[in-house]
Amino acid sequence: MPKVIKTKTEFEGRVLEEYVVVEGEGLTAWDAQAPLKFVGKKIPRIDGPERATGKAAYTFDVQLPGMLYGKILRSPHPHARIKNINTQRAETLPGVRAVLCYKNTPKISFRRQTFIFDEIVRYVGDEVACVIADDEEIAQDALELIEVEYEILPFVLDPEEALQPNAPKLYPDGNLLGGQPEVYQRGNLEQGFAQADVVIERTFRTQCALHNCMEPHGSVALWEGDSLTVWDSTQHIFGVREGLARLLGLPLHKVRVIKKYMGGGFGSKNNLGKYTVIAALAARMTGRPVKIVLDRHEENLATGNRPASIQRLKIGAKRDGALTALELKAIIAAGAYCLWPPSVGGPARELYACPNLKTEQYTVFTNTGPLSAFRAPGYVEGTFALESLMDELAKELGMDPLELRLKNYTEIDQTTGRPYSTKGLREAYERGAKLFGWPRRPEPQGQLRRGVGMASQIWSGNGMPPAYALVKINPDGTATVITGTQDIGTGTKTVLAQIAAEELGFPIEKISVEIGDTQMGLYAPLSAGSMTVASVGPAVRMAAHEARQQLLDVAAQVLEAPRESLTITDGLLSSPALQKPVAVHEVLKNLENFMIIGRGAREPNPEDVTVNTFGAQFAEVTVDTETGEVKVERIVAVHDSGRVINPLTLSSQIEGGIIQGLGYALFEQRVVDRNTGVVVNDNLENYKVPTALDIPEIVFEMVERPDPRANNLGAKGVGEPPIIPTAAAIANAVADALGVRIYELPLTREKILKALQH
Amino acid sequence: MPKVIKTKTEFEGRVLEEYVVVEGEGLTAWDAQAPLKFVGKKIPRIDGPERATGKAAYTFDVQLPGMLYGKILRSPHPHARIKNINTQRAETLPGVRAVLCYKNTPKISFRRQTFIFDEIVRYVGDEVACVIADDEEIAQDALELIEVEYEILPFVLDPEEALQPNAPKLYPDGNLLGGQPEVYQRGNLEQGFAQADVVIERTFRTQCALHNCMEPHGSVALWEGDSLTVWDSTQHIFGVREGLARLLGLPLHKVRVIKKYMGGGFGSKNNLGKYTVIAALAARMTGRPVKIVLDRHEENLATGNRPASIQRLKIGAKRDGALTALELKAIIAAGAYCLWPPSVGGPARELYACPNLKTEQYTVFTNTGPLSAFRAPGYVEGTFALESLMDELAKELGMDPLELRLKNYTEIDQTTGRPYSTKGLREAYERGAKLFGWPRRPEPQGQLRRGVGMASQIWSGNGMPPAYALVKINPDGTATVITGTQDIGTGTKTVLAQIAAEELGFPIEKISVEIGDTQMGLYAPLSAGSMTVASVGPAVRMAAHEARQQLLDVAAQVLEAPRESLTITDGLLSSPALQKPVAVHEVLKNLENFMIIGRGAREPNPEDVTVNTFGAQFAEVTVDTETGEVKVERIVAVHDSGRVINPLTLSSQIEGGIIQGLGYALFEQRVVDRNTGVVVNDNLENYKVPTALDIPEIVFEMVERPDPRANNLGAKGVGEPPIIPTAAAIANAVADALGVRIYELPLTREKILKALQH
Repeated sequence: MPKVIKTKTEFEGRVLEEYVVVEGEGLTAWDAQAPLKFVGKKIPRIDGPERATGKAAYTFDVQLPGMLYGKILRSPHPHARIKNINTQRAETLPGVRAVLCYKNTPKISFRRQTFIFDEIVRYVGDEVACVIADDEEIAQDALELIEVEYEILPFVLDPEEALQPNAPKLYPDGNLLGGQPEVYQRGNLEQGFAQADVVIERTFRTQCALHNCMEPHGSVALWEGDSLTVWDSTQHIFGVREGLARLLGLPLHKVRVIKKYMGGGFGSKNNLGKYTVIAALAARMTGRPVKIVLDRHEENLATGNRPASIQRLKIGAKRDGALTALELKAIIAAGAYCLWPPSVGGPARELYACPNLKTEQYTVFTNTGPLSAFRAPGYVEGTFALESLMDELAKELGMDPLELRLKNYTEIDQTTGRPYSTKGLREAYERGAKLFGWPRRPEPQGQLRRGVGMASQIWSGNGMPPAYALVKINPDGTATVITGTQDIGTGTKTVLAQIAAEELGFPIEKISVEIGDTQMGLYAPLSAGSMTVASVGPAVRMAAHEARQQLLDVAAQVLEAPRESLTITDGLLSSPALQKPVAVHEVLKNLENFMIIGRGAREPNPEDVTVNTFGAQFAEVTVDTETGEVKVERIVAVHDSGRVINPLTLSSQIEGGIIQGLGYALFEQRVVDRNTGVVVNDNLENYKVPTALDIPEIVFEMVERPDPRANNLGAKGVGEPPIIPTAAAIANAVADALGVRIYELPLTREKILKALQH
Repeated sequence: MPKVIKTKTEFEGRVLEEYVVVEGEGLTAWDAQAPLKFVGKKIPRIDGPERATGKAAYTFDVQLPGMLYGKILRSPHPHARIKNINTQRAETLPGVRAVLCYKNTPKISFRRQTFIFDEIVRYVGDEVACVIADDEEIAQDALELIEVEYEILPFVLDPEEALQPNAPKLYPDGNLLGGQPEVYQRGNLEQGFAQADVVIERTFRTQCALHNCMEPHGSVALWEGDSLTVWDSTQHIFGVREGLARLLGLPLHKVRVIKKYMGGGFGSKNNLGKYTVIAALAARMTGRPVKIVLDRHEENLATGNRPASIQRLKIGAKRDGALTALELKAIIAAGAYCLWPPSVGGPARELYACPNLKTEQYTVFTNTGPLSAFRAPGYVEGTFALESLMDELAKELGMDPLELRLKNYTEIDQTTGRPYSTKGLREAYERGAKLFGWPRRPEPQGQLRRGVGMASQIWSGNGMPPAYALVKINPDGTATVITGTQDIGTGTKTVLAQIAAEELGFPIEKISVEIGDTQMGLYAPLSAGSMTVASVGPAVRMAAHEARQQLLDVAAQVLEAPRESLTITDGLLSSPALQKPVAVHEVLKNLENFMIIGRGAREPNPEDVTVNTFGAQFAEVTVDTETGEVKVERIVAVHDSGRVINPLTLSSQIEGGIIQGLGYALFEQRVVDRNTGVVVNDNLENYKVPTALDIPEIVFEMVERPDPRANNLGAKGVGEPPIIPTAAAIANAVADALGVRIYELPLTREKILKALQH
């Protein structure tokens, strides 16, 4: 029976009653020494062949009879009021079926104070209208026939300028999200700084970075009667369902969202996109299915970014390194729209023992493309600043940077006072240092300067309920896992198959996994926050456990063996009471299509401990003092994400995170023209992401200690942890090489050469 | 916990151990007086709009990127050996991608002693090869370029001839299925006839009838890696899954069969078709999706038929009408292939109390298109013969035909000795007679002769386990039913929605139903045998019940009301403890995506009683003695199928069954050329099905008595019952009009005129 627990939470001064439904309890995590057959093993992706051979159908591949194509007209101005739109010429172009804009669509509220088709555009790339046509080329051509009369408004691109009283306002209530900064504090900051022997203060700046997931954002919408089906490239099919139902006034059971395969998502696909709502509106208007898939240009203008930040940090410490106070004042450039801002103060609040602390964050609207979540939002930016500052402090104190970090090590969650369930950061430091050869090695002289640096990582990663799964066992002894999660490219299907195979005692090739369908699947949370394994995995294990119980129930009766004597391994039932093992399908084949159906729910998280992931990275760089080129030679990473389910898919995450962090450290940066608000590098030719030649030697190990308090797997997520410390470690290594620090990312040749001139 | 019961069954002289899994118990059928809101109400089809507006995608509508089309080359000879096939010219036609035949495909055993592509063809229309091409036209053209060298073999078309020792043999072991007749007997036939005051003996003949469901048979096959997805126009997605897995050597979890909408199926879609296997083979060979949809010509040659029968019946009775003995010797023309033969002796064995009885059935292979199940297979044919004979006996005894039937009425299942759970046949007789004005009305004289006749119906219709369902409740108080059944056009989705709405206490528009997908759905049996409502419905009710229990669990906690005080009506929770009713979504919306998931299984059937359906039909005809034309003026039908779930979808079944029975009685007949084995009316121009002008006044009522022993709904099926007695009632009315009987269906003008000449 589901238990409902009522809790009271204070939020923005109001006391909210929250209800939590408790389900899924009763399974404890496998013991660290438990001999497991599939969990912890390098199982190749079960959906590898169809992905590699082009058989996997992504949203772009969905073809429906009579389907139309949409292209979106985007604002050429950073800030303007649409005085009029004349779509007549576009509508008469042969092959054009509809042109949607604010004039002929319902006024659907989308994000704070704005609408799907708004009469005000707030950045270059903002949605103005959409042409629906027989093919994409016609739609594209028709865009040029739409006549828009704009009233140009003053605009602001820089978040510090946007905070000025006379700055152009994006919204009637001003440019500061919420009207005031978000403030966190503990202890007494003044006293803390007064106790310090050393106080240093620095300002760090991080750039705006673009997602560039391989598969662009896009949707296909189909109406059948009053039922809407949407194929969507999304990290949360149930979230898109909820959003579409809410915005279009539909009941949830009439909205089906499907996402079978996905070519990556780093947070920009967490939420319902305008293109999805527009596709649904257009399909209803034309009576035909509509596909809208964004191109790379649109991807880089309109789907979100890691926002630029300005972080002023002030830190106080005793001579022995013990921190006494830490203050962060951060400004985040939200761009034109913001669903929820990343919190760059997280690492400062959590990473070290520090009794007196204040973080203050100003999230500021500017006339640029909107922010979105981007792989460890806030923590990548915040860790760069904090861990750079820690190195500055270590230098000031004459301490080894790692020694300073160990000095301020804590087993207590500084924000709640609760202990961590498990914390492998000390071991990560120690093993990383040993693997890397820390503290430092002799530096080469001359044009090439070598440097080393390190940084720490903290991140949640345990996920949460609710998440549900079914496990069906077929008469031939194969099984199908059904859940409503989505594989955003990380290997979710494989990991869930491993968990089911382990729990059932079946060979892994006998397991298939069905995901990505809200109508047929069960609720699962968004694939973000490094939480899919830790949220959905336990539900799958529970469902498999229930299925196994049913299988043992019937097997005991069919085989006439004591139930408690039966075990299942490799799909064989064994018991001392049996002469020889009996295959599961031998038991089931006589039961005439009897289908075992196990159901599982994710259990609640513990309330007495904090479950987090941890890690440390060490970087070695060579800086060419003539050209300013930074070459990252090596990254050593040691992370603690609890039990590892699949070292193969994990290695993709670790390496991918480090490589993406390297790009962020060295060259990824959206450039906006100051005079026009136009993004000048909204493509992969000018926006530099790392290529094979940029990739260093990557050595990583896991502190593989199952966390029994996390969930019934003992596993935590690993999607975001590896990107968090990379830029900080590289920046520290570059500072070590140069003897002088650059406070602003990315560490371009120009900045290196400029720093060397000082 | 699922209970396994082991039973021993004697089958063909061997003792078989069978296991039955017992699940789904605990719900009793609603009381006859229970005030129900949706069950028993005329709810329009919930999928009506998409069907009526053309949005519903049938198998033919499935379009996949890169899809190819297949056309099948069929034998022009009734019996031949393929000496050689040369596909070279066909293969070089531009647009042809592959030609499949026995030479380049695996030797896949399909039906007894035959293969998917066999080297022997056994009827005109038998599969020889298949061309796969870019479009259907190219494939069709290429068929003519395939050069087949046949060795012509002698053939036999008539089943009686086929039984002769010197007849051409279709199979090495001869033309009689199983090598011997199927025999059933009870009592002592000889003694029975010795006790009789009157013995009469007649031979009846029925024709071969063609299905002609509106949607043709067809499949689309798609491989993704080693996973096969098939869209199939089938009455049993799980059966097609099983068959494909077995024939192609695939595990069940790698085969997905999808059937969303269907345009009718009368039994010929019960089983896996060759076209489905060929589509799967061709898709694997070409690496592209393949669609094969049969045309009307192929439908009428190759997808099965209601087989012709010859039934010699001998009956003995006392002067008061009490039956003492009954003997049936039947020959069934199986055509070239036979999965399982219909049993024409069913009505004889079951309909009347008769202690001494023998039925003997010879199922005979002939070089004609194969038989398949066809709406009440065997019972339509058997009832025509038996109920005609009963009228002859009544005439002989000078009794009213209805009186004779009531004289032999029984409450005991004659084949098992168990009582019927409920039997409404007496009431059906009585109400039917009253509605119709039985026994008879003054007959007109002259050219137009009026006649009346009646006949009885017995049929199973309770379905069986296993069948499973899920009911998910969404946070907005809507719910989705998920099961693995298929709606063959009967209104299954609507009926399941009614059951779920009733049990949940939700408005019906808050229910959606998802069916027709083996991968995401749960096992359900084939949609045949009038058993979908009675098999799947109880599983849905059980799943809804479990969901309701969970909903009450959480609602009691959230609302702080005693659980047992809560009721749910119209989606509102009420309790004396509450000030006013609270909407379900108000309770759920605070529970953060908590998803209620109820699971249900069909309960076992009772073992101490027989659950059957019953009915009676009365026909009034006018026969034009000049033209031989029979006009059916009126049909009155009263049937007992337990509780009626939806009078609207039920009326479609009753009327459709009667109309199909009328066509069978009067004009439907496959005609095969005796010299060539060619079907001369394999199209809807020459094969006559009833049109609007043929349809009589139809009056029907239901003996609506819930059968509490049947299942938790008290409902039984109604798909087949209405077609069973129609032809017999019409034939009896025609005999009444003419004063002379025609022993062979259909009752064509030619036969009428010939009978009048005697």
